[in-house]
Amino acid sequence: MQKIAIDMDEVIADSFSKLCEIYCEETGEELENEEESLYRFLEKGGKKTLHAYPHREGFFRNLQVIEGSQQVLEQLNKKYKLYIVSAATEFDLSMNDKIAWLKDHFPFLGWKQVVFCGDKSIIDADFLIDDHVKNLKGFNGKGYLFHAPHNIKESGYERVRSWKEVEEIFL
Amino acid sequence: MQKIAIDMDEVIADSFSKLCEIYCEETGEELENEEESLYRFLEKGGKKTLHAYPHREGFFRNLQVIEGSQQVLEQLNKKYKLYIVSAATEFDLSMNDKIAWLKDHFPFLGWKQVVFCGDKSIIDADFLIDDHVKNLKGFNGKGYLFHAPHNIKESGYERVRSWKEVEEIFL
Repeated sequence: MQKIAIDMDEVIADSFSKLCEIYCEETGEELENEEESLYRFLEKGGKKTLHAYPHREGFFRNLQVIEGSQQVLEQLNKKYKLYIVSAATEFDLSMNDKIAWLKDHFPFLGWKQVVFCGDKSIIDADFLIDDHVKNLKGFNGKGYLFHAPHNIKESGYERVRSWKEVEEIFL
Repeated sequence: MQKIAIDMDEVIADSFSKLCEIYCEETGEELENEEESLYRFLEKGGKKTLHAYPHREGFFRNLQVIEGSQQVLEQLNKKYKLYIVSAATEFDLSMNDKIAWLKDHFPFLGWKQVVFCGDKSIIDADFLIDDHVKNLKGFNGKGYLFHAPHNIKESGYERVRSWKEVEEIFL
């Protein structure tokens, strides 16, 4: 059975919206277009502040689920060996939150299917679906770049824009 | 550079002594020989109780370090790509504790060198040092069985009895 490794943030868990939410709370600004406004904020040098948010306990506990991921993963789980592989060890207080979140939203996945790491070159799988080119680069199997606001200018990897597209490729 | 994956519990972190400590606290018994007494306890059906301890928050936070592991890992870290690979996802509340413990006792290892998983067959490394045959079985590289009270009857893997022996093999 082929193994598919699947990233969490921006692939099944919407951490970008949570960043925007905290940004609004802390700046008092309202975002009309989240992507554009957040990038303006980054350009103004807000990157350091933004980087601090995911280090807070609770940040990853109540994220929204990326559309379609539950239904497609449940189907993929019957035909492939699925692993959720999140580069979470950078965030000391994230992992207990992340596993609780997975239990809430992906109850059909067991604890043996979860991997928290820092460097995905340690992962032995056939496919990796990830929104970061840095993770796909070190990976030995075939990588798919999951579309996200921060990777729109990246090329070199097959891009998937939605879980509908993932479904079409794998099922 | 070759990759070595190294387990945590009973390999670099002494969770067995912590189990004995809690056992004594909760039963009021004193253990003369920890190994023997703990096995008597298991035989009397205490396994279920014992299994609950590592699920408690804080269990993995203050474990003693296995003798010699710090010195040898610091040397190995210069010649190999080292990864700490712990089957921790079974224990929902363990991972924040485990990463904090690693920072305290192995400050020369970075967060990119830490992996928390459930199934070690997902790990792509040349060597795995682990006290559980179940982890070595699914692993694709060469496995070394790190001596521990629970694995004394196991065979089929090269056994290492101490970090001194690991040092002799790898350095």
